Amino acid sequence: MKFPSLADIQAAHERIQPFIHNTPLLKSEAINEIAGCEIFFKCENFQKVGAFKARGAANAVMKLTPEQKAHGVATHSSGNHAAALARAASVAGIPAYIVMPSNAPEIKKKAVKGYGGEIIECEPNLMARETTLQAVVEKTGATFIPPYDYFDVIEGQATCVLEMWKEDIPFDTIMAPVGGGGLLGGTALTTKYISPQTKVIAGEPAGADDAYRSFQAKELIPMVSPKTISDGLLTSLGKINFAIIMEYVDDILIVDDAEIIEAMRLIYERMKIVIEPSCAVPLAALLKNKARFTGQKVGIILSGGNVDLAKLPFK
Amino acid sequence: MKFPSLADIQAAHERIQPFIHNTPLLKSEAINEIAGCEIFFKCENFQKVGAFKARGAANAVMKLTPEQKAHGVATHSSGNHAAALARAASVAGIPAYIVMPSNAPEIKKKAVKGYGGEIIECEPNLMARETTLQAVVEKTGATFIPPYDYFDVIEGQATCVLEMWKEDIPFDTIMAPVGGGGLLGGTALTTKYISPQTKVIAGEPAGADDAYRSFQAKELIPMVSPKTISDGLLTSLGKINFAIIMEYVDDILIVDDAEIIEAMRLIYERMKIVIEPSCAVPLAALLKNKARFTGQKVGIILSGGNVDLAKLPFK
Repeated sequence: MKFPSLADIQAAHERIQPFIHNTPLLKSEAINEIAGCEIFFKCENFQKVGAFKARGAANAVMKLTPEQKAHGVATHSSGNHAAALARAASVAGIPAYIVMPSNAPEIKKKAVKGYGGEIIECEPNLMARETTLQAVVEKTGATFIPPYDYFDVIEGQATCVLEMWKEDIPFDTIMAPVGGGGLLGGTALTTKYISPQTKVIAGEPAGADDAYRSFQAKELIPMVSPKTISDGLLTSLGKINFAIIMEYVDDILIVDDAEIIEAMRLIYERMKIVIEPSCAVPLAALLKNKARFTGQKVGIILSGGNVDLAKLPFK
Repeated sequence: MKFPSLADIQAAHERIQPFIHNTPLLKSEAINEIAGCEIFFKCENFQKVGAFKARGAANAVMKLTPEQKAHGVATHSSGNHAAALARAASVAGIPAYIVMPSNAPEIKKKAVKGYGGEIIECEPNLMARETTLQAVVEKTGATFIPPYDYFDVIEGQATCVLEMWKEDIPFDTIMAPVGGGGLLGGTALTTKYISPQTKVIAGEPAGADDAYRSFQAKELIPMVSPKTISDGLLTSLGKINFAIIMEYVDDILIVDDAEIIEAMRLIYERMKIVIEPSCAVPLAALLKNKARFTGQKVGIILSGGNVDLAKLPFK
């Protein structure tokens, strides 16, 4: 398997730069004191569509040939990738067909429609999603852009940590959450190309720990019935991403939902920013394993900020 | 009454600059589209102690004579001023005596203690607060630093908009919330000194509309039984602040709690930042009176981010 090179990732960054934000890197003295290390938070919650997914989707769309573009793009997703792909297509002036389960939250549908995406509803199960997507692709000739198990998407997500490395900070460790593995895979590639001695460590919810178990077993173990507050990390790890992780990721740490909520509260209270639960997973993993990070410079990617404000888990 | 001059305010800014953040000015394309104008949000929710109050408290403490400093500072407050004064005293290495009602939220007490402030509890009524404070001042010789009706505090709060004017943006309007009037007074002074043609407009909750009524009646009408979700704006307008407002503020607009919550939600959802309800009042006032701001460049001060996460008003 030929992974994207540093040159590929740099080219992706130039390609998508006009369409995304170079998000800020924020620090919190209060959190550093609690953590015993110096943390730099890359705020992808401030990214377009409110999540890093804007990067991969933009890169995948911009790389299409003119002929492919003419037929548009398609995907199945009920999350941030759906909105990100609809937005990227809208920027490129091409159609986006988004297959969504009929029970997807109204707010997610609204986001897709807001970017001009066309929603095709299906029954809420994997089989229906795949057959409906297949039918859409056959009918329209659209190119299927998968949410994470896809080189162009991984290349796009890899640009996030590239921006962090441009800040001239000698990170000892870079941390990201892992769900499908697009962000983690891209982050690991870029980081190890630029600074092989830097550790790349993922955080994963205990209730959706397929990446952790696959990493330990050295074989891809799909997730069955995941259950965690981190709704962005419910998906199973992708095949390409697993291969990248086995080669370039140093460790995967798991945390339970109570630890995730505690870290999430710290970020809301001390940094005054809105993040989704998935974002808090790496900080939770760091706080659970403080001794491993003492005195280090740690970069943490806050992956997104699309959260249902009426359902925040704070008590 | 001799108000602080522009030179006084500039000197205050130099005085406190090492101890405060120059907070960022953020924009949101989505909110601009809804509002029909270009808004620059001054993010004092990212300020030290999570609110602009850090400015006034720092200025008041730094202006004390060495002899005054030796005896420390005192105040009565259950809000952001308490934490701000405790922090400013801690930075200066002097004692802070904070009189708080016995029923003050544990989190507020914790903040004061975290900065090394000494809490003196009293019965939860105005009479008890004042007599307890009086006793503390007599016993310790501490200097009383009032939360808003005090020149050194107003001078400090005035530095917030001074930072906005240093960004070289030709604001048509500057907006701030009004409670006691320290922030609004300071904001009006600085703005009219620098740009007399710029409008200074306050937002105030309908349930605590003493500034609005005083402004209309041209005489100070104290607030009786205020009731609003904007807990930072429950206090009555100060005398000095009223005098400044009558001379330098162009208008005060009132909004109800539903409008405040709607604006607050917009800021959380579109900007992904945590603010307290008081902050959302100026945006709510702008959205209620859109036609007055069409096409303008508007600066809005987001005053703070200290909110009880378990009691957010979103449904």
